[in-house]
Amino acid sequence: MKITSPTLLLDKGKCIRNIRMMVEKANRNEVRLRPHFKTHQSAQVGEWFREMGVEAITVSSLRMAAYFARHGWRDILVAFPVNLLELETINELAATIRLHLVVVNMESLEVLDKQLQHPVYVWVKIDTGYRRTGVLPHNHAELDPMLQLLLQSDKLYFEGFLAHDGHTYKQTDTEAIQTIHNTSVYLLHLLRKRYHHLFPDILLSIGDTPSCSVLENLTGVDEIRPGNFVFYDLTQQRIGSCTFEEIAVCMACPIVAKHSDRNEIILYGGGVHFSKDFLVQEDSSLLYGRVVEPTNYGWSTPIDDMQLVSLSQEHGVVSASDEQFEKYDVGDLLYVLPIHSCLTSNLMKRYLTLEGEWLEHLSGTPL
Amino acid sequence: MKITSPTLLLDKGKCIRNIRMMVEKANRNEVRLRPHFKTHQSAQVGEWFREMGVEAITVSSLRMAAYFARHGWRDILVAFPVNLLELETINELAATIRLHLVVVNMESLEVLDKQLQHPVYVWVKIDTGYRRTGVLPHNHAELDPMLQLLLQSDKLYFEGFLAHDGHTYKQTDTEAIQTIHNTSVYLLHLLRKRYHHLFPDILLSIGDTPSCSVLENLTGVDEIRPGNFVFYDLTQQRIGSCTFEEIAVCMACPIVAKHSDRNEIILYGGGVHFSKDFLVQEDSSLLYGRVVEPTNYGWSTPIDDMQLVSLSQEHGVVSASDEQFEKYDVGDLLYVLPIHSCLTSNLMKRYLTLEGEWLEHLSGTPL
Repeated sequence: MKITSPTLLLDKGKCIRNIRMMVEKANRNEVRLRPHFKTHQSAQVGEWFREMGVEAITVSSLRMAAYFARHGWRDILVAFPVNLLELETINELAATIRLHLVVVNMESLEVLDKQLQHPVYVWVKIDTGYRRTGVLPHNHAELDPMLQLLLQSDKLYFEGFLAHDGHTYKQTDTEAIQTIHNTSVYLLHLLRKRYHHLFPDILLSIGDTPSCSVLENLTGVDEIRPGNFVFYDLTQQRIGSCTFEEIAVCMACPIVAKHSDRNEIILYGGGVHFSKDFLVQEDSSLLYGRVVEPTNYGWSTPIDDMQLVSLSQEHGVVSASDEQFEKYDVGDLLYVLPIHSCLTSNLMKRYLTLEGEWLEHLSGTPL
Repeated sequence: MKITSPTLLLDKGKCIRNIRMMVEKANRNEVRLRPHFKTHQSAQVGEWFREMGVEAITVSSLRMAAYFARHGWRDILVAFPVNLLELETINELAATIRLHLVVVNMESLEVLDKQLQHPVYVWVKIDTGYRRTGVLPHNHAELDPMLQLLLQSDKLYFEGFLAHDGHTYKQTDTEAIQTIHNTSVYLLHLLRKRYHHLFPDILLSIGDTPSCSVLENLTGVDEIRPGNFVFYDLTQQRIGSCTFEEIAVCMACPIVAKHSDRNEIILYGGGVHFSKDFLVQEDSSLLYGRVVEPTNYGWSTPIDDMQLVSLSQEHGVVSASDEQFEKYDVGDLLYVLPIHSCLTSNLMKRYLTLEGEWLEHLSGTPL
């Protein structure tokens, strides 16, 4: 397989190990793993989960739910506040699969209750500290009528409370992640207790990759929904969720120019390939990717004296030491670990495995 | 046409006016307009240029060149340092169209000279100050042998010198843009003079949207290659290239949640729709988009007390005043002008005109 333009490589071995690690951790903790498929969005990668016993999944849009339903998944949670403008799609999906929706307010429940043609499973999203969306756990004035409506509805089957601790992405310290996780579990338990008299079997679901990766003890909830761990990336390595060796995707980019006056190498590979996500380095400069070297099978850990420092639409600028600069020629490929594998995969639209097989991504399928 | 998920709207009237403005400016200055099609990447939008007499275009990848060649364009410049790994595609294209390539070093010229099967038109890219890529204008040690090789080659037809003043994107002052432009023209003229004895008909090509929009006098070069002006965006408005009224694309996003404790509205519309590009505001906060209101035909200028302040993969967070917050309900659409229309279009993969017609984007076509 000759690579001639920016290509997202996937190391299947690493990916399978990442999946197995999380499956085994969920088993040890006796929680259900409902992995988030928004990171890979690939029917084939999904099969690797299925082969390890995963039956229930999480997605972030109804289009993604429909895609995985077409590929045989029958228990799908759309972990995004329900979009009332897509009721038609919701009804279509709910007719054929066990469809789980997330609600964050009374208005949405009322519309669903009136307009659904088939039952759906409902999770009430609780904002346990991230402050993006969800009902605040002390907002009983909002929650009480929501739970009353869920009790009376014959279309809405209440499953339980769900939280997403996205603020773990800003941490680099295990104790901070532990505190965030404990807080969520505590708040969700309070809610379960409060509504136990109405619903004796309330489930609790959490699910960010940092918590699920860094913490060993995930008991206290019924379900975890991490997603990024399937590939990991430099953001997760910075947090401490993974090692460099566990990052399972890598960009291969042609070198199109070298500038010896400033030791910069120009890649064919820009914002439309990597995404514009970055990490801030200790000296306040921005990092858009780290360079690795090809090995007999796959790629090395990042080299220290060379990194992707700037991106425009199609160009990437790599700054290199004298020694690294001399190693590369125009027409060579350079290998770069991405900052955020979810966004890079979405832009690249497919994967090339080290065995030379192309794997699909939803964003590369017809609209 | 009912909009149910994030959708990129295109106001054809504004777009046509933007195209006409640049066509007329090029005519007044007696320079050739070779518009960059990387912003729209749409066969149909391309036709609007053709109807106004445009025959030669610029693209940023060979895939984009092949796409527009399939749609009848016969004179295409790939304004990106030539990627030697795609010689096969270059040979295929050069067999059927007038293909222009950009070179920034001797090595690439040598490879092209040896391996091309059909003639191509060559532009030597000069770095007139942006410091991304190109040969420095005083680097005669590099340029002299390049021009000698071009003189002797029977496959490489030297067209002239090309520059891209990407540093105008960091300016908000017309005089600064004028100085950058004058510097480029001066440096390109020096080179034309230096090599006049070898090539009596050297052409000069420049082409960033800020210079071509802000400056009235574009004489002194033979060709201009702006691209973003077809749609414009908030980045160009900040620079001074356009008014808010000239921005021809707008995102429509469903509202999925409202948080009255902090006056935040949650959109279905995130980094996979808008891109992660942002503008820094006066108070150092980040701006990811500005909210407009729908009108009888199209949309208004931005409203002051409501803006897109944060993006994750699929979520957007809009911060609003009390008054604006009350105007909107869950299930409504919110309209947002993008920061960077090139990246938003690439992610959205198609356009919906105000007349309800879907227009294609290359990134929505099969891989």
